[in-house]
Amino acid sequence: MLLTRRIEFSASHVCRRPDWSEAENRAVYGDEAHPRGHGHNYVLEVTLEGEPDPVTGMVVDLKDVKAVLEQEVVAPMDHRHLNEEVPPFDRVVPTTENLAVEIWRRLRPRFEAGPARLKAVRLYETEDLFVEYEGR
Amino acid sequence: MLLTRRIEFSASHVCRRPDWSEAENRAVYGDEAHPRGHGHNYVLEVTLEGEPDPVTGMVVDLKDVKAVLEQEVVAPMDHRHLNEEVPPFDRVVPTTENLAVEIWRRLRPRFEAGPARLKAVRLYETEDLFVEYEGR
Amino acid sequence: MLLTRRIEFSASHVCRRPDWSEAENRAVYGDEAHPRGHGHNYVLEVTLEGEPDPVTGMVVDLKDVKAVLEQEVVAPMDHRHLNEEVPPFDRVVPTTENLAVEIWRRLRPRFEAGPARLKAVRLYETEDLFVEYEGR
Amino acid sequence: MLLTRRIEFSASHVCRRPDWSEAENRAVYGDEAHPRGHGHNYVLEVTLEGEPDPVTGMVVDLKDVKAVLEQEVVAPMDHRHLNEEVPPFDRVVPTTENLAVEIWRRLRPRFEAGPARLKAVRLYETEDLFVEYEGR
Amino acid sequence: MLLTRRIEFSASHVCRRPDWSEAENRAVYGDEAHPRGHGHNYVLEVTLEGEPDPVTGMVVDLKDVKAVLEQEVVAPMDHRHLNEEVPPFDRVVPTTENLAVEIWRRLRPRFEAGPARLKAVRLYETEDLFVEYEGR
Amino acid sequence: MLLTRRIEFSASHVCRRPDWSEAENRAVYGDEAHPRGHGHNYVLEVTLEGEPDPVTGMVVDLKDVKAVLEQEVVAPMDHRHLNEEVPPFDRVVPTTENLAVEIWRRLRPRFEAGPARLKAVRLYETEDLFVEYEGR
Repeated sequence: MLLTRRIEFSASHVCRRPDWSEAENRAVYGDEAHPRGHGHNYVLEVTLEGEPDPVTGMVVDLKDVKAVLEQEVVAPMDHRHLNEEVPPFDRVVPTTENLAVEIWRRLRPRFEAGPARLKAVRLYETEDLFVEYEGR
Repeated sequence: MLLTRRIEFSASHVCRRPDWSEAENRAVYGDEAHPRGHGHNYVLEVTLEGEPDPVTGMVVDLKDVKAVLEQEVVAPMDHRHLNEEVPPFDRVVPTTENLAVEIWRRLRPRFEAGPARLKAVRLYETEDLFVEYEGR
Repeated sequence: MLLTRRIEFSASHVCRRPDWSEAENRAVYGDEAHPRGHGHNYVLEVTLEGEPDPVTGMVVDLKDVKAVLEQEVVAPMDHRHLNEEVPPFDRVVPTTENLAVEIWRRLRPRFEAGPARLKAVRLYETEDLFVEYEGR
Repeated sequence: MLLTRRIEFSASHVCRRPDWSEAENRAVYGDEAHPRGHGHNYVLEVTLEGEPDPVTGMVVDLKDVKAVLEQEVVAPMDHRHLNEEVPPFDRVVPTTENLAVEIWRRLRPRFEAGPARLKAVRLYETEDLFVEYEGR
Repeated sequence: MLLTRRIEFSASHVCRRPDWSEAENRAVYGDEAHPRGHGHNYVLEVTLEGEPDPVTGMVVDLKDVKAVLEQEVVAPMDHRHLNEEVPPFDRVVPTTENLAVEIWRRLRPRFEAGPARLKAVRLYETEDLFVEYEGR
Repeated sequence: MLLTRRIEFSASHVCRRPDWSEAENRAVYGDEAHPRGHGHNYVLEVTLEGEPDPVTGMVVDLKDVKAVLEQEVVAPMDHRHLNEEVPPFDRVVPTTENLAVEIWRRLRPRFEAGPARLKAVRLYETEDLFVEYEGR
């Protein structure tokens, strides 16, 4: 069984590589390369996989899930500038893809002890664009 | 090919075990344990798997799907108190997880004769929390 | 200028009058009269009217609004059975209309001292039905 | 990693077979068989599968995806009558299922050269009915 | 107090005047002028104004509202081609504006006897475009 | 008649006054005061008031509306840092309230020549917080 918790956080980012020219950055990242940055209300869906406990009927304690998401995502990323305040985005371009990988990297070990393991993270940059990552 | 039909129903529930103390129930279920119950507008997505019929171009007759959902979910559960009126929730805690399993158990045999088989049920308790079940 | 804050809470209710027969209750309230109750994820939009403060640029401090909504709506109503636990719904039928009036009655005095006054409450029972109340 | 782009287009269609009687068409397709046609705001989610490029951090250039969707879906189908203007729906019934297959058929080869391959198309006829197709 | 009921219907339309050239129609209506027509999932919000009845707590009987909307909007317009099947759109261009006026014209007299009067109709052609009409 | 066009744009902002201490800024603006800024997918609803033209059936030419919104809002604000790139937010705190006023100030004169006048702007910072401004 899969259980998904959805949260939202607001952050700024810029997609550009310092080793590229302005023209190269614009060609690849378009408006996302604009140097002062811009922001999004990111929507994150975190999917856990497990079996409902026969006694409680719950796959996982949602209070625990909430605490992990607060510590690993909301506290460090909400109302932040990703490139300037959230490693590794001081050196990794914070595309939606890379941000999903980083969130996966942070969350995965937190659910390894069970009772449910991290199955997937889905990250919406806007309602018309989202990525889904299941590790590899 | 997967075809999904989405419906909504309103029901009450309480998550608590009669063999536990008040403190134990609160520790595990939080506000969901409140004894008088509370309710949700549950959203259910029922996914069927099949091939489009070469003549009709349809995986399944949607009128049949609607009739099954009406009989197995809406009629018995909509505007009901799950614990008090919908077995097995007189003895099984109606967590979102257990409710999804019960809906699967009711729907699965209804689609066994084809033309499309039940692939998954996804149940939203709120827009920020949902479970998905594919049997086992 | 109008500023609106949207919150969600889950509650049970029953629409029936004890002085009426079962048939009368069903004729007027339909499924909403079912005696065990059912529930909704109510969505509440609270609209305040005021001018942006020339120094802060804010109509109202959102932390204050949040605190009021928590005290007057979420704490007493979320995860509750309206008829059994939230006066005056022990004697007033908790239709969406009456619930909106009661929320207005609770919130109005809390914003009377300013800086913004309560302009309207909009209450969604489902995404297809809502009422809006501005006092009288 | 999966990346999904969502677009919307408005089109008319009729679901009926010319070799069937009016009664047969109504029995199978219901109101969808009404001969003058009706329309929908179709929502299409196109899912691509690939790895983020280690240099750009992108699975695919979204400008390329947008161009393909414009050429293969929006330009030929938006503000069109599917049966009368969009082959093969002059001879194939434009059910949601068949429309998803046709969109898959058009998009698949456009992404074969990489860097990301077409994984699935999800097509919503309304917010309560959608199909998902991954080829075969 | 305002009470709003939201419904959805699917219809085709074409925005063009027969007394204009193709070029004139394109210049004014753009893609909406395409002669074969296209369609939308129209969303209609019907707002009624009244006072909650002191006995029932209801502004209006929702079963009556549903019946009126079924007769005046859904039955004649759903799954229809507005220009070809729904007068006066055989001679009036079915812009969103004109369609809202026509729906107002049909609904207004149905609520004149009370207990609640028609206050406004809001009609969404897409989620990004809507009109609101209150008569005049 | 009111006609509303909805658009979305992504921008960064910081709510803080340079003449205040860090503590004062935090006390008033909370997380919004974080100095590196953060961002939102702002949703803007622009409402125009007019009468449908008896010949075209249109309140306004939507192509004109789109062009104005592109020039006055999307081009200068989308993918921008409001404080650093969009006057007057180099000296005015870009609260949602002040941003709505600025958008009103930019749009109002563009619709003064008719055929429809600007009636209101509604600006969503998140789906749970929005302001509405009608000038004064």
